[in-house]
Amino acid sequence: MRIVIALGGNMIVEGKSTGTYQEQKAKLEKSAKVIVDLLKMGHDLILTHGNGPQVGNLLLQQASISTVPALPLRILGAMTQAQIGVMLELALKNELLNSKDANLSEKEVIVVPTSVLVNSDDPSFQDPTKPIGPFFDENQFTKIKIGEDEIYKTFNLGYRRVVPSPDPVDIIERQLIESLSKAGNLVIAVGGGGTPVVSKKGKLEPVDAVIDKDRASSLLAREIHADGLLILTNVDGVYKRFGSAEQKLISKLDRMIVDDLEKDGELQSGTIKPKVYACQTFVENGGKFAIITSPDKALKALTGKAGTIYGTPIEI
Amino acid sequence: MRIVIALGGNMIVEGKSTGTYQEQKAKLEKSAKVIVDLLKMGHDLILTHGNGPQVGNLLLQQASISTVPALPLRILGAMTQAQIGVMLELALKNELLNSKDANLSEKEVIVVPTSVLVNSDDPSFQDPTKPIGPFFDENQFTKIKIGEDEIYKTFNLGYRRVVPSPDPVDIIERQLIESLSKAGNLVIAVGGGGTPVVSKKGKLEPVDAVIDKDRASSLLAREIHADGLLILTNVDGVYKRFGSAEQKLISKLDRMIVDDLEKDGELQSGTIKPKVYACQTFVENGGKFAIITSPDKALKALTGKAGTIYGTPIEI
Repeated sequence: MRIVIALGGNMIVEGKSTGTYQEQKAKLEKSAKVIVDLLKMGHDLILTHGNGPQVGNLLLQQASISTVPALPLRILGAMTQAQIGVMLELALKNELLNSKDANLSEKEVIVVPTSVLVNSDDPSFQDPTKPIGPFFDENQFTKIKIGEDEIYKTFNLGYRRVVPSPDPVDIIERQLIESLSKAGNLVIAVGGGGTPVVSKKGKLEPVDAVIDKDRASSLLAREIHADGLLILTNVDGVYKRFGSAEQKLISKLDRMIVDDLEKDGELQSGTIKPKVYACQTFVENGGKFAIITSPDKALKALTGKAGTIYGTPIEI
Repeated sequence: MRIVIALGGNMIVEGKSTGTYQEQKAKLEKSAKVIVDLLKMGHDLILTHGNGPQVGNLLLQQASISTVPALPLRILGAMTQAQIGVMLELALKNELLNSKDANLSEKEVIVVPTSVLVNSDDPSFQDPTKPIGPFFDENQFTKIKIGEDEIYKTFNLGYRRVVPSPDPVDIIERQLIESLSKAGNLVIAVGGGGTPVVSKKGKLEPVDAVIDKDRASSLLAREIHADGLLILTNVDGVYKRFGSAEQKLISKLDRMIVDDLEKDGELQSGTIKPKVYACQTFVENGGKFAIITSPDKALKALTGKAGTIYGTPIEI
């Protein structure tokens, strides 16, 4: 089966890490082991990943020296696609080379910096709400150099930049990604949700925005005709009353259950909501199944013994 | 014919530009026109490019804020591969979409962040000589934060970091690049000479070094069985007595002519020497021809009417 796996931030940096190279490298090497275990099940995998801490760091560095021009967000995201992508590629390649399995050791790994079409009239462009980068207090805020088109809002912890988070409409490199995967390669794509581009007078123009990586992964899975979508995060599934003493894993989702969860306000905590809807959109548009779980439960979840599944359980 | 084109820095930033996004974008859009004109001749092209100013800027930004961990050079190069690569990809895609030629408008463009194997016992690791990033005067130098394994040397203009510039030995993604090109895609690869990696106990480990982009392009051309190598730079060919009143274009090179030029000290000025040897290595290892010229003479040079050619002239 062909499965798109969206790697959570916890597979790239430790919770409290500031994101040094060595920390990210060690974490990605651990994650590569999980992915190669999934490859051993015989599936074709396409990997996607987040980039929040990395693009946040890059934004700060870009703004810290006046003699070097700061590059806009639209291109910083692309840079993190190669930063994380190449580190993950090498970790995977080493894990594959040492797998002692001829099918795996010759597998090629490729990073595809991906652009994603969004609508220029997406409502999020009128009302940007996605916060990125650091908080600034009143004193710092008066001193920072604010670029053209940058919007800041006040939050509890101070001022913070907000950007649009438009819906992904089309993965520009989808044909390439699909054919690379069908040829047996391990593809890393749509990092950080991809570089958002709009179509203006027949031209693709990148824009300063952030596409939710789970929504982009869901669209990619649909467009390349994947069978499954596996979203790996820091919880092993979707829970009712999450965080309370009576929390209860929901092992199966469908539209009715999601509607009920939404109605009961169960999807508010953390970042579970976009993940649940990414699963729903995929399965309602031709996908066989979508799973939300943690990296250490991934193998079990694919055989139906852990995690939360939306759609038809997998036949073994 | 399959031709690897190495784009010079003058196709990415203006000579005196500090490298703003808009300047790079405008320059790459102009360069995309040149490349699409070459595609119209019916050749399959693989593009490579430099990254000197971009990685220099990134190094400075990384060193300018103490609260965010600086990433090492090995991964900054990868980041510039996506930075320049994605901007070039979109510029090419727009130029192709608007070419009104069905063969071209459906052509896919893909950036392949590339890793390049080097020998861990390459002599350059013992004696790093490739200067990168800014000059520091005595006063600045005492204040800068010098990372582990970083070596600085004194030059006329001050202190400057030097890194090894090892010979490229193998392009890790060569099979993928070759098959992507054979399938009719326009591939951008080996940006900035690629991410240098060494093999240590059966594992690929990135190292802080810079591979000459023309040498890496020459190796790529050999490994993917390209017919030609076209090195585009800011002069329209190799000259005798370059810069003098009697300067004379050398339209054809072979081993004897190169030996004579070397003996006469004609290859010392600027960066022409590695380009000449990149051409020689390619042609002596199976390549049909290699050309050194400027972007505006590229079309003419491919029909034998401009530039400097090494090897068999092209049959039209």
